[in-house]
Formats: sequence, C-alpha cells, structure tokens
Amino acid sequence: MATSPAMYAELNPLPRLLMGPGPVNADPRVLRAMSAPLLGQFDPQFREYMRETMALYRQVFETRNEWTLVVDGTARSAIEAAMVSVVEPGDRVLVGNFGRFGQLQIEIARRVGAEVRVVEAPWGAVLAPEQVEAALRQHRPKLFAVCQGETSTTMLQPLAELGRLCGRYDALFQVDATASLGGVPLPAEAWGVDCVTAGLQKCLAGPPGAAPLTISDRMADLVFRRRHIEEGLRPAGYRPPATVRIGSNYFDLAMVMDYWGPQGINHHTEATTMLYAARESARIFLAEGATSVFARHALAGRAVAAGVAALGLKVFGDAANRIPHITGVCVPDGVDGERVRARMLSDFGVEIGSAFGPLKGKIWRVGTMGYNARKDAVLVTLAALEAALAAERVTCPRGAGVDAAAAVYRDAERGP
Amino acid sequence: MATSPAMYAELNPLPRLLMGPGPVNADPRVLRAMSAPLLGQFDPQFREYMRETMALYRQVFETRNEWTLVVDGTARSAIEAAMVSVVEPGDRVLVGNFGRFGQLQIEIARRVGAEVRVVEAPWGAVLAPEQVEAALRQHRPKLFAVCQGETSTTMLQPLAELGRLCGRYDALFQVDATASLGGVPLPAEAWGVDCVTAGLQKCLAGPPGAAPLTISDRMADLVFRRRHIEEGLRPAGYRPPATVRIGSNYFDLAMVMDYWGPQGINHHTEATTMLYAARESARIFLAEGATSVFARHALAGRAVAAGVAALGLKVFGDAANRIPHITGVCVPDGVDGERVRARMLSDFGVEIGSAFGPLKGKIWRVGTMGYNARKDAVLVTLAALEAALAAERVTCPRGAGVDAAAAVYRDAERGP
Repeated sequence: MATSPAMYAELNPLPRLLMGPGPVNADPRVLRAMSAPLLGQFDPQFREYMRETMALYRQVFETRNEWTLVVDGTARSAIEAAMVSVVEPGDRVLVGNFGRFGQLQIEIARRVGAEVRVVEAPWGAVLAPEQVEAALRQHRPKLFAVCQGETSTTMLQPLAELGRLCGRYDALFQVDATASLGGVPLPAEAWGVDCVTAGLQKCLAGPPGAAPLTISDRMADLVFRRRHIEEGLRPAGYRPPATVRIGSNYFDLAMVMDYWGPQGINHHTEATTMLYAARESARIFLAEGATSVFARHALAGRAVAAGVAALGLKVFGDAANRIPHITGVCVPDGVDGERVRARMLSDFGVEIGSAFGPLKGKIWRVGTMGYNARKDAVLVTLAALEAALAAERVTCPRGAGVDAAAAVYRDAERGP
Repeated sequence: MATSPAMYAELNPLPRLLMGPGPVNADPRVLRAMSAPLLGQFDPQFREYMRETMALYRQVFETRNEWTLVVDGTARSAIEAAMVSVVEPGDRVLVGNFGRFGQLQIEIARRVGAEVRVVEAPWGAVLAPEQVEAALRQHRPKLFAVCQGETSTTMLQPLAELGRLCGRYDALFQVDATASLGGVPLPAEAWGVDCVTAGLQKCLAGPPGAAPLTISDRMADLVFRRRHIEEGLRPAGYRPPATVRIGSNYFDLAMVMDYWGPQGINHHTEATTMLYAARESARIFLAEGATSVFARHALAGRAVAAGVAALGLKVFGDAANRIPHITGVCVPDGVDGERVRARMLSDFGVEIGSAFGPLKGKIWRVGTMGYNARKDAVLVTLAALEAALAAERVTCPRGAGVDAAAAVYRDAERGP
C-alpha cells in the first residue's frame, strides 16, 4: 500500500492491580522467564524443558499420570482438546452445571458431537453427590464433566465424592480447574479424576495462553485408540485405525501426546515462550509448597470477606462452598456496579470483576489469586472499593474494610 | 504428596542461532514487550491494544479487512479456525498440495468434515495455474486452500493468478502464509485472497504461539451466518440460527470476531503476553518497512545459496520458485545429515533444519528469517556448516562459503 504505515506507540500499559476473577498480575519471575531466548523445538535443551514441565505439573496435579502436559491455547482450549479427543460423536456426556463455565462445558461437549445430559444446581450453589449419583445412574455417561471453581458464581464444587461415584458408574471424570488449580487442593489421582485442565492466569501466577492438562492412563488409552497420524508424517505401511477420527487436528491429544512423548513426532510447534511461562509458574508454586500457597489464598480470601462485611456489604453464595480466593460481593441496591468498578480502575488502578448472566450487575467478583494473594493487594483493593462506594454516596464506615482485613492478617501472623 | 518436590534449575538455555525453518530467534524487542505487566482483558488499555493490533496486521496483510486479528494458538490453529468456521460438513474443499503443509491442510479439511479434493505438484515444485484452474472447474469447491511458502520443500507458490482463478470460479481462497508472511509480498486484497493465516515465529521475528489471521468480508459473512452465541452469554430472547453449528467452540471465528469486535463479547481470555508479542512483531516489521524487510530476506537467502554453492553443495528445488529465505541444501551422498546438524548445534550453537517425508535425510533447510535475516547470522552458519562437513571428511574448499556469501553482501552494499 502506498500510504505510510500507521504506527502505534511502544507498549507501556499503566500499572494495574488485577483483583478480578483473572487474569491477575503475573509473578514478575514468570515474565522474566519468558524473556529467555528461543530454542528450536527439537533442540535437546528444549525437549528437556518440556520433560521437566511434564514432571513439574505431575506434582502440581498430584498425579503420576504420564500424560501431563500443556496445551497451546487459553484455558478453554484444553477442555475442548480433552473432550474432542475422547468423546466420539453420539457418546453421552453428563455435565454438572451451576454457572457459566458449566454452560461452557455443555457448549463444548455439544460441539464435539456428544449427546449431552445435564445435572444442575442454581447459580450460587454446588451439586450434591446424590444428585450426581442419580444422574450417573440414569444416563450412564461415558464422561462426566464439572468445574471445580465456578468463577462466574464464586462457588467451589467438592470433588472427592464425585470421583468415587464416577468410578462406581464407570464414567470418565473431567474437571475444569482453571480458576482453582494452585489455589485449593486437587489431588487428581487420590480423587479419581481422569482429566484436569487449567490455565496459568489465575492461581498459578502466569499469563493466559497456556493450558496445563493431565489425563489418566485409562483416558489416554481411549484417546490413543483414535490415533490417526497426520498424512505428512505417516511411516511407510501405516494403516489408520478403524476408529472415528478425532474431529480436530490441533486438539488431537493423541498427536499432542506423541509430540510431547519420547518419540517427539512433529505436530504443532510448541509455543516456546508460553512453555517457559508454564514451567516457571509450576516452579514458583512448588518452591513455596502447595500447603503454604493454599493457606495464602485462603487467608487473602478471608481478609477480603471480612473487609467487605465490615463495609456493610454482603458476600454472595452458599457460605459452605465458596472458592476461598474469589469472593462474590453483592452490589448494594441502587448502586451502579459498573461505575464503582470504573472508578476503582481509573482512580486507583485496581480492577475487580463484574459478573455474567443472572448475576450481571448483582455481584462484583474479587480475586486474590496467585501473585496477588497478598496482604498489600487486599488492603489496597478494600481502600479503593470504600472510596468508590463513598463517591457513589453509599453509606459505609470509612476505614472499616481495611481495618477488618488487616486484623485477619494480624491474627494469622500471630498464629493459633 | 509426601515427597519433597522435584525441582529443576532456573531457565537458562544456552544461546542458539536458529537458522532452520523456524522458530527462529525472536527479536529482543519482542521479548522485552512480552515482559510488560498484564492487563485485564476488558481494561480499556487492553482493548485499545487489541484494536491497534488489528490495525497493524491490516497493514502487514495489505488489506482493509475488518476481521484481521490473532488466534490464540500456534500457526496451524488459525488454519483450523478458518476452515472449521466456514466449511460445513460435506462442503467441497480443494487443497493445493506440494509438500507436508499441503498435506496438513488436507488433514485439517477432512477433520472438519469437508469433502476434500486435491491438486498436486511433486515435492520441490509448485502448482501451475492451469492445473489449479482445471481442478477448480472440475470440483467447484467452496474453498481452495494452498500454502504460499511450503517450508517442507522450500518452495514458494505464486498466488496472484490463483486468486484471479478463485474469483472466476467463485471459490474462497485460503492461504497458509506461516513461513512467508513478512518475508515476501502477500497483498491479500490485491491478490484476491479471502483468508491468510500465519505465525509469529518465522519472518515476523516473534515466538510461536500466536496466529495472525485476516478474512475477507465475504468470508466473514459466511462465518457470521453460523454464529451461535455461547449458552452462558445469550441475550434474552436469543434464537440460534438454523445453520449448522460450528464444530468447535475455541475456533469459532464468529465468537472470536465478536470478542475482538466493538461489542467485546466474552469468549476465551485473550493471551495477553502473546498479544503484546504479536503487536510488537508487527510494529517492528512496519517500522522497517515491507520493502526493506523483503529485500533483507531475499539478500540473506541469496547469500546462503551462494555460500552453499561455493562449498560444492547443490541447492534443492525448482530454482524459479524457491522461498527466498528458506534454502534447501542437498545432503551430499554418503553424508549423515543428522550428524552434521548435531555438530553444528553442539560446536557452534547453530541450528539448521532437517526435512520430512520423501526429503528426509536428503536436504537440510537453512532459514534466514525475521531477526536472523542478517549478514552475521548467514556467515556464522556457513562457517559452522563448512567445519561440520570437514569433520565428516567431505571435501570442500575451506573458507569458500563464507567468502561467497560475504561477496553477495558486499555487492548489495555497493548497490547497482
């Protein structure tokens, strides 16, 4: 084109404290790791980094699953990769739905051709094991999918009993742990989970764009039965299996596993820099130790809850099943939640989340995840929230939110 | 788990000069841009960065297409996103196949349910327009897909005439420009290309993991006719269209466009850091200017070709249609090409590429792309190749490769 190029300024975003449901601020160590020079995808050093990343995530997922790797896409890409790879058109899939990300699982399962059945709880609650058992007994699905942390409602689904039920009814058990992995326990093997998928941008303190995934040996076997090697890469005499071909090339986990595995059969070109990020996120998590990280997330969430209560606001949802690190805060009647959020962002550089669907305009969502599960982040957020409420003429006891949250931290520091 | 975590050392790869078919070394400015702090996906600053990225890539693709954006995955993810979004099961797709990445397009088209027809040229050649016209006339496909730069064979497919033919036979024209965008001209609009997809990790000097894509208005219209809004996000009274639902959620370009567009309807969470990379890669390309970048790529390729010829090696493939910046070099008879590559890597830190399928063991592929289309990179590579050949007792005139390449640069610097 003849015109001179329309350029834009060098990237230089104003700093933001990201206290919504994610993405949150990445740990600076992850960003630094991403600046490491690139390597060829079959460079022995890079293959070793891939193997190390698999080993690190086995520990994060608490599993011995051989097939523990990273899908090159955002969190939902791994949900789809798992479903399209194991679910054949017409297979029955049961989805546990109690929020927007349950609906996403329904959506993905339908698109890959599953016959979908749904077991539901209202937004703000979770599923009871009896409900799930009844649905498993009735529908006998090949796979049962559920969210652990349903960010849209801030609800945390207990999983251990559901894993036992899936074992009893011989269903594969797939868990979307995007917003929970690294924030609360999810021992995949002990709880009988066949597939866990996540992202980096929540409790793992990395950027969005890489999706850690683990699948059990029995699920991997089912996927490998559908392995169709790409035309350009077939060895001489290759005969594709009689199984239904996986309906995606990019998300074909059989080929993705062959790429990550010792054979190293070419598939996509691994996203070098995101692999560096995933590796560093896991290292940071494991170096601190799961117990400490979970406690830090829970403490930050308790402090937020105490702070908003002290400001006279109500915490949303079934108190017994809240995600510790994502707090739903009811928007007071007559208050424009979006104006409060906009003011927090413009005046304090603090971002909190709005909500979807039936909760739109009704709750804010405050995340204390990953690198941001910190006292200073919590106190700054409460100070900003208070000021923004005051600007909207909401009566609230000035300073009470910060004081209450600080008290929670003080008590925790003092110890039991 | 009771055991203490198995940790791995801090990321610290040995430096590599990546002179294969990609990924190549990212421009350090791209890596620096990636270290910018994260933003929320609906932060006004981030939305502006997304809009700017669209505007920048319109210039890179030389098009006014509104729908010019980045798919969050590696290069092949955008090929699949385009195909699954526009091709309905049973639609006829014609693929131009003259190497491994033609085969990949066949593979992807089959998986999304297309009835695939193929027009072929041997590995090392490209398609003649008459061939393509005959196939278009015979098969009347909805879409014709072809690679511009077929990295597996180092061949460059001329496109202008094929675009005219697609117009005449009313076929959508999709081009995989992963290895060519930013290295050779591809004026999408002038050449009548409806969809171009690429990656960052070749001529655009970024890391793999983000896939720029542009689609024409007529192709976007076809995609939007299949727009099914995600269940959790449907407005009240929404009725899905009667069209066949797109068989992927992640790759549903109708939803991806709604996310990138002014409505900003939530879909995936944009991969913040990869978006930063894509934006910076385009800025660097446009700041240097397309004409200069293309000349730099061509010059580096000529220098490599002169260098390998001076070493007594043969350049592979139809000389009239070589990708200027990826040179196929015939492995001399009796030489173990993998040993040569391994020695170049271990002794010089220089990576060149091997080959696939019928060319496996027969050629090396030397890329001079993006940040690495530089004189020093070319000369170091030739010095390393010569030494590795000598170590394998291949008789070659010592120093001749470097001298010949340096002479090409000297002549170019002297000017016409």
